[in-house]
Amino acid sequence: MAKNKGPKRPKAETPKGFRDYFGAEVTVRKAMLDKIAAVYHRYGFDALETSGVETVEALGKFLPDVDRPNEGVFAWEEDGDWLALRYDLTAPLARVAAQYRNDLPTPYRRYAMGPVWRNEKPGPGRFRQFYQCDADTVGAASVAADAEICAMLADALEAVGIERGDYVIRVNNRKVLNGVMEAVGLIDLAFPEKYEAERGIVLRAIDKLDRLGMEGVRALLGEGRKDESGDFTKGAGLKESAIEKVLSFLEAGSDEVSERNSEKRVAYEENIAIDKNLTDLDKEVIFNLFDILYETRIGSEAVLELLEIISFCRSQGYGPDRIIIDPSVVRGLGYYTGPVYEAELTFEIKDEKGRPRQFGSVAGGGRYDDLVKRFTGQAVPATGVSIGVDRLLAALAAKGQGAQAEPGPVVVTVMDRGRMADYFAMVADLRNAGIRAEAYLGNPKNFGNQLKYADKRAAPVAIIQGEDEAARGVVQVKDLLLGAQIAAQASLEEWKSQPAQQEVPRAQLVEAVRQILTRHGIG
Amino acid sequence: MAKNKGPKRPKAETPKGFRDYFGAEVTVRKAMLDKIAAVYHRYGFDALETSGVETVEALGKFLPDVDRPNEGVFAWEEDGDWLALRYDLTAPLARVAAQYRNDLPTPYRRYAMGPVWRNEKPGPGRFRQFYQCDADTVGAASVAADAEICAMLADALEAVGIERGDYVIRVNNRKVLNGVMEAVGLIDLAFPEKYEAERGIVLRAIDKLDRLGMEGVRALLGEGRKDESGDFTKGAGLKESAIEKVLSFLEAGSDEVSERNSEKRVAYEENIAIDKNLTDLDKEVIFNLFDILYETRIGSEAVLELLEIISFCRSQGYGPDRIIIDPSVVRGLGYYTGPVYEAELTFEIKDEKGRPRQFGSVAGGGRYDDLVKRFTGQAVPATGVSIGVDRLLAALAAKGQGAQAEPGPVVVTVMDRGRMADYFAMVADLRNAGIRAEAYLGNPKNFGNQLKYADKRAAPVAIIQGEDEAARGVVQVKDLLLGAQIAAQASLEEWKSQPAQQEVPRAQLVEAVRQILTRHGIG
Repeated sequence: MAKNKGPKRPKAETPKGFRDYFGAEVTVRKAMLDKIAAVYHRYGFDALETSGVETVEALGKFLPDVDRPNEGVFAWEEDGDWLALRYDLTAPLARVAAQYRNDLPTPYRRYAMGPVWRNEKPGPGRFRQFYQCDADTVGAASVAADAEICAMLADALEAVGIERGDYVIRVNNRKVLNGVMEAVGLIDLAFPEKYEAERGIVLRAIDKLDRLGMEGVRALLGEGRKDESGDFTKGAGLKESAIEKVLSFLEAGSDEVSERNSEKRVAYEENIAIDKNLTDLDKEVIFNLFDILYETRIGSEAVLELLEIISFCRSQGYGPDRIIIDPSVVRGLGYYTGPVYEAELTFEIKDEKGRPRQFGSVAGGGRYDDLVKRFTGQAVPATGVSIGVDRLLAALAAKGQGAQAEPGPVVVTVMDRGRMADYFAMVADLRNAGIRAEAYLGNPKNFGNQLKYADKRAAPVAIIQGEDEAARGVVQVKDLLLGAQIAAQASLEEWKSQPAQQEVPRAQLVEAVRQILTRHGIG
Repeated sequence: MAKNKGPKRPKAETPKGFRDYFGAEVTVRKAMLDKIAAVYHRYGFDALETSGVETVEALGKFLPDVDRPNEGVFAWEEDGDWLALRYDLTAPLARVAAQYRNDLPTPYRRYAMGPVWRNEKPGPGRFRQFYQCDADTVGAASVAADAEICAMLADALEAVGIERGDYVIRVNNRKVLNGVMEAVGLIDLAFPEKYEAERGIVLRAIDKLDRLGMEGVRALLGEGRKDESGDFTKGAGLKESAIEKVLSFLEAGSDEVSERNSEKRVAYEENIAIDKNLTDLDKEVIFNLFDILYETRIGSEAVLELLEIISFCRSQGYGPDRIIIDPSVVRGLGYYTGPVYEAELTFEIKDEKGRPRQFGSVAGGGRYDDLVKRFTGQAVPATGVSIGVDRLLAALAAKGQGAQAEPGPVVVTVMDRGRMADYFAMVADLRNAGIRAEAYLGNPKNFGNQLKYADKRAAPVAIIQGEDEAARGVVQVKDLLLGAQIAAQASLEEWKSQPAQQEVPRAQLVEAVRQILTRHGIG
């Protein structure tokens, strides 16, 4: 065809970085969210749905992992006000908690699920609109609230089909990290903003432990690190003794260092009432952390909180196969002020080059005591979790529980346009029996197109009734899945015992279809 | 407190025209949408979810009921591209149908539900973000597709709880209206744009029949009309004979005019094979319309389509209690090109002044053959319906089936902070039995606050275990709903037979709570 002919037409394109979701991509996600919502609801959380649009003022500059204000947000001016699409579900919650503070119960426990928007450079698997699924407790200072959310996260993961042993929830405390900063001399109480850059470098280095290993982190804590491409990243410039302190902190979660602190254990056991439910490793980790942080006020307070959280989990039956303390958890550079937690899937998948790797993080959260204070001036303790819906769906898909092609409707073909009412009566009989069905609504002239349509819809069954069949009061019932199997593999014998097409009296249509669906495990 | 003290804080406010949805407002809507989705799915429609953001180019100027381009849309520039929030679910469908035309089945049948955004002046009950819930068949020229959607709409309304008799689906055809225009001389085939203003006035007048009555419409068809406030609306300037023709057209759906055309009926019956399933009124309406439109090509074609649609509905058992022809249905000034339909709820509600009025329209749609053509240049026949989710929810609420206060969780109170693990073990027992429950996570010092919390959460039951109860291995189970009833109305005798608070052994906690919930019809 000639190009550039006729009037200029708009391009039929999804905007850059956005995508469309079809059929099972929608319904499988919905089914997963429904299961998570049921867990959240059973835990006493109430639904909240705010709109996609907020004022820029209310949204603030709290986009996690972004240092610059308003970066990464879709915003526009409207009659003098700046509006923006929400970039997460936490900022709107903070606004709601402040706006309705006189009406909401305290604590306010809510769950929310829906799309959020990020104005970021799109990449493979990285879209500018994606789903989040959050639960938060606002107004509870007790770390029992954090512990409960960790337990609930474990329940939610199992509810959607992640088996126990295939995930672990790692818990840490931002104040532990602050204690480490204090212990290595990166906090000057008189000048809180001093060493901010260095602290950022240390946190980012810790956050990259998985990827860079201990040696990479060591380089970033000291002078800096040259990566494979030759790019140099400036380090935090810590002294050797400070570097060793940070590294031993990172090892505190592992039992490999258990010997080192054994001499001090007796003293600690005497000073701390250790819960009988704690495992040996739990105690070890707590001891290790105290050993590094006992001199810092904030650090030792943080370790006690961690102890309380892990005691809570153990007492409720959540063992180390589900929830552990991991001092290397950072959760970005954002607004967290206390406990932080993340759910990691531990089973292996193949990366794009076929190499095995762990699936990684699918959810995370923590305590953020300052978000509501922005509005009201009064500190409101809050903690919550956000599940990365697309990551979790990808995980289910990797485990073979993902969005498989949904079975399509039974398709009643149209042999005789004058008898549409008859075909629709068949459809109605099937639907009334709870069977998904439709009549072919395209141009019926080319019967091949009708079978192609049934194929494209993944129809399990096609119904055919021409003039001859109508006169005899029968219909042809065609098992399309079996037909496909026979074409692909089955032997002649099997074909004989299970014919892919059978003629049945019109009155037995529903029964015949149901038998085929049952045979294929549909409906 | 002193005002204007301290740093300027952001306002905790929903943007103008937006709102938040809490608890049952979210879950009741979701339950309704789930029921509708199940009907759509059973009819063979597949889910589609596009993102909230589209390019302005793809969105086009098709906002229904708005004459000016891009009015009513939230749009902004992003790296040289103009993006906008979708204002409905039809424009994105047209984009998808064009973009994936080589991969999608033909016809493509999809349903979609989600928020849309309109940059309109907010008013009472009128928000700038609201839900739509659509089903469309793209690529089917047959009006069987329109008829099927009308039948499906009836099924969907009944599925969500609108009883038969409380709604009616009215069907018309835009081409019938075009035929009327032709019949009264407002179409000049040589100059298609001539009389456009007059046609607009006529359509708007017809659309206002409900509100203005026949005399108001007559005035608008002629010189014009002065309303109660004294404002004058210019009329279409039709001649008296033309006005009569339009008015008799508007009466064509009523049996009050049945005598007028009786002499011609025999001739029509001979010329048209009238379906045996049609009611007398169906035939009457068809005759009436032919009587007015037989001289216009487009009008008589349109009447035949209406005949086909109503025949289809009747043959599938959808009688005049559910679906009727109504020549006064216009469905805005937008993009419809053929059959149009709307669902009206016929039960009475009281308006804000206490006067009875019919509830009105909750869904509508029609055929729009030109939306996909915008992109591809090729006409693609399409038809579909959109349910006004908030209107339908309001209707259910008016019928007493709306978002009532959802029962809250069982609240386990905290008498002794040192025994949080025990309280959470009670919560876990309840949750494991499928009972919504939580421990109080606020500051437990003031027990009154805990009961206030339980009250605010609409908790049906509170659990109390102090030191004394713990020592004796029992818990106090407090029936909060019964307590409220007793406080409000019950006599002493009733109170004695059903004590609002009972002491049970800890091991019988779940059983005792379940008995109370069952008594109140919860869970």
